[in-house]
This record gives sequence, structure tokens and C-alpha cells, in this order.
Amino acid sequence: MARQSLSGFPEWTPAGRVVEQHVLDHVRRTFELHGYAGIETRAVEPLEDLLRKGETSKEVYVLRRLHDEGETTRERQLALHFDLTVPLARYVLENTGSLVFPFKRYQIQKAWRGERPQDGRFREFTQADIDVVCQDAIPFQFEVELPIVVAEALGGLPIPAFRIGVNNRKVSQGFYEAVGIADVEGALRAIDKLGKIGPAGVTEELTTVVGASPDQAEAALALAGITAPDESFADAVRALGHRSDLLDEGLDELTRVVEAGARHMPGVLVADLSIARGLDYYTGTVYETTFVGHEGLGSIASGGRYDSLVSDGKRSYPGVGMSIGISRIMSRLLGEDLVRASRPVPTAVLVAVVQEESRAASEAVARALRARGVPTEVAPTAEKFGKQIRYADRRSIPFVWFPQSGEVKDIRSGAQVAADPEVWEPPQSDWWPHLVAAEN
Amino acid sequence: MARQSLSGFPEWTPAGRVVEQHVLDHVRRTFELHGYAGIETRAVEPLEDLLRKGETSKEVYVLRRLHDEGETTRERQLALHFDLTVPLARYVLENTGSLVFPFKRYQIQKAWRGERPQDGRFREFTQADIDVVCQDAIPFQFEVELPIVVAEALGGLPIPAFRIGVNNRKVSQGFYEAVGIADVEGALRAIDKLGKIGPAGVTEELTTVVGASPDQAEAALALAGITAPDESFADAVRALGHRSDLLDEGLDELTRVVEAGARHMPGVLVADLSIARGLDYYTGTVYETTFVGHEGLGSIASGGRYDSLVSDGKRSYPGVGMSIGISRIMSRLLGEDLVRASRPVPTAVLVAVVQEESRAASEAVARALRARGVPTEVAPTAEKFGKQIRYADRRSIPFVWFPQSGEVKDIRSGAQVAADPEVWEPPQSDWWPHLVAAEN
Repeated sequence: MARQSLSGFPEWTPAGRVVEQHVLDHVRRTFELHGYAGIETRAVEPLEDLLRKGETSKEVYVLRRLHDEGETTRERQLALHFDLTVPLARYVLENTGSLVFPFKRYQIQKAWRGERPQDGRFREFTQADIDVVCQDAIPFQFEVELPIVVAEALGGLPIPAFRIGVNNRKVSQGFYEAVGIADVEGALRAIDKLGKIGPAGVTEELTTVVGASPDQAEAALALAGITAPDESFADAVRALGHRSDLLDEGLDELTRVVEAGARHMPGVLVADLSIARGLDYYTGTVYETTFVGHEGLGSIASGGRYDSLVSDGKRSYPGVGMSIGISRIMSRLLGEDLVRASRPVPTAVLVAVVQEESRAASEAVARALRARGVPTEVAPTAEKFGKQIRYADRRSIPFVWFPQSGEVKDIRSGAQVAADPEVWEPPQSDWWPHLVAAEN
Repeated sequence: MARQSLSGFPEWTPAGRVVEQHVLDHVRRTFELHGYAGIETRAVEPLEDLLRKGETSKEVYVLRRLHDEGETTRERQLALHFDLTVPLARYVLENTGSLVFPFKRYQIQKAWRGERPQDGRFREFTQADIDVVCQDAIPFQFEVELPIVVAEALGGLPIPAFRIGVNNRKVSQGFYEAVGIADVEGALRAIDKLGKIGPAGVTEELTTVVGASPDQAEAALALAGITAPDESFADAVRALGHRSDLLDEGLDELTRVVEAGARHMPGVLVADLSIARGLDYYTGTVYETTFVGHEGLGSIASGGRYDSLVSDGKRSYPGVGMSIGISRIMSRLLGEDLVRASRPVPTAVLVAVVQEESRAASEAVARALRARGVPTEVAPTAEKFGKQIRYADRRSIPFVWFPQSGEVKDIRSGAQVAADPEVWEPPQSDWWPHLVAAEN
């Protein structure tokens, strides 16, 4: 990471940015390969629109023009968006006439929250979101597709193993109703604290605050204890001996998600019936992703199915979405040195300059190499070759080209060979900076 | 463009974003091929740091936390950056210990100004900057390199022809001094108004405000009238019959820039001695770029050589930089429909689903295609094929794959052929969305 002069506003060194750019490119390419179209929305929304989602209102950064001459009293007050979902809803509503549904979109942008910075929590952070938004009704298949796309986006990167936990609001709600817990929201809030206050604390809250009987609390805890990387979770739920139509529907849906997950990426997707976060908002499948061995970092990719992203009064727009916390991932990768860039500059070749009068010959070599996609610089001054080699070495450029002899030198090994700029290629691993995973 | 609900905060439709992403990818790749490393800086800077560049202070957006409980009186007040140069200076100063100089960096990010929106002027806009920053001294060669990199970044795109005008502070200042104009800054300010108030107005200002004699004013206007796409501009200047060492130095430098430009991209780089904007800040070469036939849009890529980006008291950091106005370019391309995307979605192929029970077979086809880089979706529901084809058509997906017959159909022409998902490729022009330039 770069020296951080403002807490909560992380910046990376050039080498760190190589890692982040690699992650972003891989994520974007995966989204596009699955047919998601990229959009960007402005950084600001009218404050009143952001405050509709009341809970996070306290974290919003409000804007004012420094030399405001009374315009903002006439204009609407603006604030920085705190996620990419509110902007998506507004964008969909403004462009219903020109968008085609299902609207499959990805969006990789910064968001801002004024909350106190902590490990993995920033005031400025980059999110990579995918959502499918439909008009009126949404095929269930998209709830199956989303975690697979995200697993592919995170897979193939030199990052720690990860696990996508899935649950379904219908399972929790259907089960609570079958058990006879009237305050479903309250029960979800209690179960959400399982990691923090433990089973005894949750039982206490369920019986005293939520009004559940000891048997009901025990049943709710038993449900939350079920986790499995395959459809066996459904038998475990049924073995608890409660049923309702909603529970059956939820189990069927969750089974479809888990089965598809097992088919595409065995072991990554896990039914985890303790997941309760966001179930007040999400109405079907919900997702939470953690790095194995870094669970304390929190979720690195979350989301779920929502019945109505937005409504224009006539139609509603249900959808399903997931959001990858790029900054959270990056802070762990770079902060614990889990991944490094092979070099901080794109340049593979420095073309030496014999004397200023022959600079055009060096430029011709560089142009030929660049035309074939080899990142190439020309030495800025015709110093002695020793100095030009040190220039390359200081900048971590692996090859130096000598145009007068027509030779290229690997300055790490010292090996020097005759080479034609129309043909020569660097080894694949030296072409662009690549990522190196830590040994541990 | 998308429907714009906040003036000055442009957003593009998905098809417009395809165009912008194409431009951004090409610009980034060009920068990297020339050895520039990408960085990102946070969106905010302490207000006091932004205000050092006094002139633009009135345009700054200041941030405040909505439920601020007195922290901001203790914390420093933050504001959104209005360019990428102030953040670069701060980043360099904070990381001098870990950066390697020359620090060649590019930075593609949003910036914000609270000014009144106009054609090509936004409150939120994307800039693509390259700068070379050195310690203590900077090789002149980088002043030659920068416009060539920018010309390559803009070249090869389906955009209007452009012209990079170059001047050099030393030419203007050296000439004015040789002529005997004492108030160099005043003369530059007057010449800067040439386009707006014409030669008569400039003469008036030079003689009354700047204190030049009629002969001196005539000489200054004669200098500003010189423009040439090659080194002949220098003879034209010398023919005016004034000389000084500074003027000679400036003419030599500008000649090097123009000669290299003519060698790399004939006709694009033009010595234009009327350029005076920014010469209070820039100390050597300056650049201004316009679309030919769209001069009213203003400069789409500007910059120059500065003696000191920043100083830490012990060392100074001279540099040279250019900034491409991506949003300004995009607003013209999309606003006048000069360029279009061949389709708004990345998807080349929709794999049909015969029935839900055989969805796995469709997924296998899609996986095989994606593994070879073909953007592919699977139909979300096993509707009748006619409906699945209409789904593809509505989303502008050119090909539909039928897994049971092993055939792929170009739904534009109706042509249907047997195909193997391990081998079949879409035509190159259909693989990803491409850009189509307008006919005019």
C-alpha cells in the first residue's frame, strides 16, 4: 500500500495498482463473458433519494460548492453515493424506455461512506457489482447464475480460497412460521448475532426480546446450525420435523442453487442457514462470501434477490445482484503481502540510444516492438550504456535493446542475443507484469 | 447519452458506455505500451491543499458528513479534486521513498468542478492524464514524447481528425523580451484573447493595458500569427528580425518537438505560436488539442512542461504532462452520433435451453464457448425456441445456439450451421461489440 495520509482513503503503490488492475480486468472480463453490460453512473445522487434507505443515512457525504451563492437552496442537495444499488435503481427508472430487460449490468466504481475506518472498512472504496433487473417478473435461474459468475470472477486469481455461503429468505421465514415464531424479522436479527454473541446469547434474545419459547429458540438455532456444500442440507432441515409451503419452496430454490454450484465449482458454494444479514431486504436467495482463513475480514461479495429494486408506480423491477468488495480484497492481499506484481512498470524493453543523432533508429525499434504489443520505452538521454542499463534496472525493466548491434540483453541473467524487432518476443511471463502469489 | 436528470453529470446508455470503454481501453493500452504505470488516487484532498491553486477555488465541491458530530472541526476539511495534477503532486511527495524516477504514470479518473455546465464542460468528468515527473532535472526528450503518446492514444479511434498545437513559453517570453515588452505575463494574457476579441482588440489591450508600443504590439501579433506543421515556423519567427538567447533556446526546443511529430504522425502536430493559455504555469512546451471542424468544443487534450510540480523543501520535482478530456470527447461523439457501438451487450451467443431438465447441456456449451473467450449467455427459461430467439433479438445478440441439434443460427441472416462448441468462432467483427463511425 502507499503511504496513507488520510485514514479510510486507501491508495496503492504503482506495484499495488498492478495487482488491483489485474483483479479488475479479470472481474470485468468474466462479467462480460457472461453477457453483463458495463455502465457507469455519476458519483452523486440527490440527498433525498439516498436517505430513503434510512439505515445508512448517517454515513453519507453531503456536497456543497465552496462559493455557493444560494444556488443549492434552489438546486437539490447532492451527496456521494454509498453503494451502486441506489444509483442503479435511479438509472433504470430514468431509462426504462431505452433499456432492454432482463437488464444484465455490471458496474465497477467507487463509493463513499463517512463511517469510522476499520480493517477492511473504508470511507472510499471500489465495488464491482452485477445485477439482473427485470420488469414485473424475474426468472429464478438468475439466482442460480449470479454466484457462479462471481465465483468465476474471483476464481483464477492468486487469492486465498473462498466460500460463497447461500441461504434463502423463504427457508428461514417458512421455518419460523412453521415453528410458530411470529416475529420473523426479530428472529432474523437475533440469528444474525450468532457469530458475535454465541448460541446462549441468541437463545436469550430469542426468548426475551423476540418472544419465542425455549423450544422455538432451540429449533431456530438448530436451523442456523445447518451447513452443507450440497443438497443434503435440505434433508437436514426436513429432519427437524417442521414444514410449510413457503419452507418447501425455499428448500427447492436453495437446492437448485447449491446443485448448480456443486456442478460448476465443487466445494465453493455452501448452503449456510445461519446467514440472516440482509434478509429484511432480500426476498429469496442471499449470498455472503468469505476468504477461508480470513473470516474476520467480513464478506468480500454479498447480495441477493430483491422483489422490487424500484417502482415507477405502474411496474416494479425485481432483480438479483451481488457486489464484490474490491477494496476490502485488495487491502488484505496487499496488506498481508499475499500477492505481488512481478514489476511495477508495464515496460518490458528499454531501447538504448547510442547518441542523440541516432535516436530515430531507437524509436524505430520501439515502434516495431509496440506494434506487436510489447511495452517499450526509449532511453530519454544518450548516456553511457552502463547508465542506460542502470536506468532500466532501477525501473525494473527486464530487457535492454541495443539498436546499433541489433542485440537484446536480459539484464537479470546478463544473457544477450541478436534479435529482430519485427520478430523477437519477450518470454510470456515477462511480457506484461504478472501476479506472484505468496508462498504460504 | 442516457436521460440526464442532473445537469453537468453526464451518463451514457449501455451502448454509449461500450464506446467510452473502447476509448478508455485504447488510451490505457497506448499509455502502457509506452511504459506509463497506472495509479489511482483518492477522490478527495484536504481543502487547503486544493486552494493553493487559487484560481479554481470557486469551483470546488466541499464534503461534510451528514450527521457530523463535530469531528470535521478536528479533522481536516475535505473536498473533491478538480483535476488529477494536485493529487499527483501530493502522491509523489508522500511516496518519494518508494517511487522510482522518472516516474511515468497515467491516471484515468473522475474529477469534479462546481462550475456552470456548458457544451463540453461538466461538473463530473473523466480525465486521462499522463505525466513524467523527475527529481531535480528532467530530460527534454519527455517534452517530445508526450504529444506523440497522446496522438497514438487518440489515433486509431473512429473519432474526428485532430490537431495538437504546440508552443513554448521560452519562444513567447524570449521574443517579447527581445522586442522590449516588459510585461510578459500581460502580453500572454492579451494574446490568449485573440480568438475571442480579434487582432484589433488584442492590439488595443497590448497598447493600453500592457504598455506596449504600436510596433511592439504589431510584432507580438505577427508572432502569434505563425503556425506550421514543420520546422519552417522557426524561420518565420527569425524573419521577424528579433532575437535573444531565450528565444533561440525556445525555437530549438520547439523544433525538436515538431520534427519528431512530423516523423511519427505527419500533419497532426502543428507549431502554433498563438497558444498562450497556461503559459503562466508552464515553463517550456505547451500543448492544446482540437478536433478539426469542432474547434468550438475547446481543447480535448492539453498540458505542458512545469518546472516544479511540487517541492519538499529539499528537492523539486519538475515534469511534463498532458490530460485528455474523455468526457468532453465522449459528449461530442455520442451527442452528435459520430460513433456507435455495433451492439449494447457483450454477448455474442445465446445458448437455447430445450427443457429445464437439459439445462446442464446448454451450460456445457456456454462454458466451452466462454473458455475460448466467446461472450455467451444461456437462456434463463426453457420457453419455445421462437421466444428464445426473440429474447436474443431483443438483446441484440447475433447468434443462437441449439444444443440438441448442435447448430448455431445467425438470427440476422437466418443462416444456420452445424457447429462444435470447442471449435466454432463468431466472425471477428461479431466477437465483441465494435465501434462504427458515422458516414459523414
